[in-house]
Amino acid sequence: MNIIVQKYGGTSVADLEKIRAIAGRIAKRREDGEGIAVVLSAMGDSTDQLVGMANEISKAPDPCAMDLLLATGEQISIALMAMTLKELGVPCETFMGFEAGFSTSGDHCKARIRRVDPSAVKASIESGKVAIVAGFQGISESNEITTIGRGGSDTTAVALAAALGAGRCEIYTDVDGVFTADPSLCKDAKLLEKSSYEEMMELADAGAKVLHSRSVEIAAKYGVVLEVRSSSTGRPGTSLIPESEISEGSVISGISCNLDEAKVSIRKVPDKVGVTAAIFKPIARAGIDVDLIIQTVSEEGFTELSFTVPKEDLRRAMTLAEVVAREVDAGKVTASGDIAKISIVGLGMRSHAGVAHRMFDALAREGISIQMIGTSEIKVSVVIDMRRAEDAVKILHREFGLADR
Amino acid sequence: MNIIVQKYGGTSVADLEKIRAIAGRIAKRREDGEGIAVVLSAMGDSTDQLVGMANEISKAPDPCAMDLLLATGEQISIALMAMTLKELGVPCETFMGFEAGFSTSGDHCKARIRRVDPSAVKASIESGKVAIVAGFQGISESNEITTIGRGGSDTTAVALAAALGAGRCEIYTDVDGVFTADPSLCKDAKLLEKSSYEEMMELADAGAKVLHSRSVEIAAKYGVVLEVRSSSTGRPGTSLIPESEISEGSVISGISCNLDEAKVSIRKVPDKVGVTAAIFKPIARAGIDVDLIIQTVSEEGFTELSFTVPKEDLRRAMTLAEVVAREVDAGKVTASGDIAKISIVGLGMRSHAGVAHRMFDALAREGISIQMIGTSEIKVSVVIDMRRAEDAVKILHREFGLADR
Repeated sequence: MNIIVQKYGGTSVADLEKIRAIAGRIAKRREDGEGIAVVLSAMGDSTDQLVGMANEISKAPDPCAMDLLLATGEQISIALMAMTLKELGVPCETFMGFEAGFSTSGDHCKARIRRVDPSAVKASIESGKVAIVAGFQGISESNEITTIGRGGSDTTAVALAAALGAGRCEIYTDVDGVFTADPSLCKDAKLLEKSSYEEMMELADAGAKVLHSRSVEIAAKYGVVLEVRSSSTGRPGTSLIPESEISEGSVISGISCNLDEAKVSIRKVPDKVGVTAAIFKPIARAGIDVDLIIQTVSEEGFTELSFTVPKEDLRRAMTLAEVVAREVDAGKVTASGDIAKISIVGLGMRSHAGVAHRMFDALAREGISIQMIGTSEIKVSVVIDMRRAEDAVKILHREFGLADR
Repeated sequence: MNIIVQKYGGTSVADLEKIRAIAGRIAKRREDGEGIAVVLSAMGDSTDQLVGMANEISKAPDPCAMDLLLATGEQISIALMAMTLKELGVPCETFMGFEAGFSTSGDHCKARIRRVDPSAVKASIESGKVAIVAGFQGISESNEITTIGRGGSDTTAVALAAALGAGRCEIYTDVDGVFTADPSLCKDAKLLEKSSYEEMMELADAGAKVLHSRSVEIAAKYGVVLEVRSSSTGRPGTSLIPESEISEGSVISGISCNLDEAKVSIRKVPDKVGVTAAIFKPIARAGIDVDLIIQTVSEEGFTELSFTVPKEDLRRAMTLAEVVAREVDAGKVTASGDIAKISIVGLGMRSHAGVAHRMFDALAREGISIQMIGTSEIKVSVVIDMRRAEDAVKILHREFGLADR
């Protein structure tokens, strides 16, 4: 039996009417003879509401209790979906994370998936039922409910698809797919019908919000065919396929714009061995992701060190940086939240030299100054003033001919 | 270690402030050296909200999915309580129904508790932790989450106390305890400091809402000392003790008033063998509890049959009665929801003759006519016009001297 894993996010199951629409579509697909596992997120903003209650109780709520609390969100979704499918006469079975065989590490709120034993889900599908699986959750070795943090239900869906050997994993969202740029910033943005895992991972890391890089990484590792679809139309949007199946195309596949990072700068850092390591050690230990780093040597033999962190971690990063700045005898620590990280991503970069230069040149022509630069094999990122973000996306979209793909 | 089981109902954990107040009290009791298991209901009206969603999906939501849905309510309560206790520095551990060892039958939404294996909860308490247990839920033999229906978390608490061999089970509610009559109907009502299991079961069955008879029944069976306390003050209210420890007192201990029943009447029932059985068979099969039954023979050789059912089951009962009335060639089926069932309960009835007569007489003197009568060894119930319910409670409270206890 050909098994398909479908994942519906929070906005797709935000109310009973939306759940009914999805159930109707699932029923139809099942009639077509496909075996279906459905992975669901919590309804709408219900997870945020639960987190809000927890934060009222404590600044640092007990993570084990937090997971028990958050897991109810997906449990409610799968129960309501089961009722709706049964009302339509569709046989189905629900699976909480642990019932679906998701064993994780014991790091509450950010557990890693260790193993997926899909046998119960598989048996259910093979007996003709739709398997309805709670996303985002698993169980630790000490039998406590865990949640898997970033990437959440997308990651659940892809991992389940890999374990089931499913023919395809369909991620339903409130957009039509992945675009060459954010359509709200750039009217000419085109739907990317096909993309490679590598490009999508870079785009996701660079702030394109459609898929989380963790789910793409698992899909790439296990060769899961991953599709982003619109949950309102059900139509295929963007398919992720191995790089080898991508025909030669444009140099650049997409542009992302990330407004969720902030910049921390430490002035007058003494130019001594080990200083940089000393500065980043406490930040790494606190679990804060540092993205771009830039070091400028000023005339007086001092360095200025700047780096970006997620905005939500800015306050903690500042506190840690101030402590360490005093320790290494550096100067003032300043922060700026008014930045945008613009990234261009494309497999074509490997074979085309001068892509980064072309990017910098196009921005310079429009008077957009670059504060920081970062590169990978198939990505170039620049940090600019947030107020020029939209301009930058439009300029680069035109420069690399993305509207004409 | 002396173990106490405490149960807090929905109104007692309706918001974070109330949860904090309870947590503070638990912390204090633990410092006093008591081992504590806390059984919680879902917050406020959250269960009603979940039921509302389910009823929007279907007139008869799938009961298995319903249990999965409803179980989230108590799961949220225990998670929030655990966060609050940890914030106060109190070590604690949470237990969903299945983790607390509650094995039930597979009758979803009204499962029977089959076995309670309290070893995990016990180990947690003995290691110095407060055990926080989700009420109202268990797990079936086919590993599906179940809820236990009527009596809910009270029943969980008493069954857990019995299994743990706890010294006492404290049921915290939003009232001060059980009164001789509903204080909102009768200003003279007095708090019953002590009562027997038997009396409390009859009072509960007759509609006193403080404890459900199912929990009292389990307490009686396993000799659990049961206390009703006010969740706002924490003070002891009503203690349930074995009958043998009750000293001779008043003939009547309490009066209850139940407005939740409705009367169904079938006219012109042919006076044939087996007709009554034929009428009640489909109603019993539908799981509808019939309480009082009265049969009056009219002059033409016909009987009129009346019986009471819970108001929530009235529509189903009417439908079934109409079908069977046609089958047995009886007359019209009518219903009345404007009734009140007034019951007087007391162990003293056993040794005092004429209690029922005294009740009927007192009501007659005030012009209150009796529509139906039911009796047990320690209870007399009458059905009267709902509009005279408050009068009847006051008259009987005075007649049996309950204000002077």
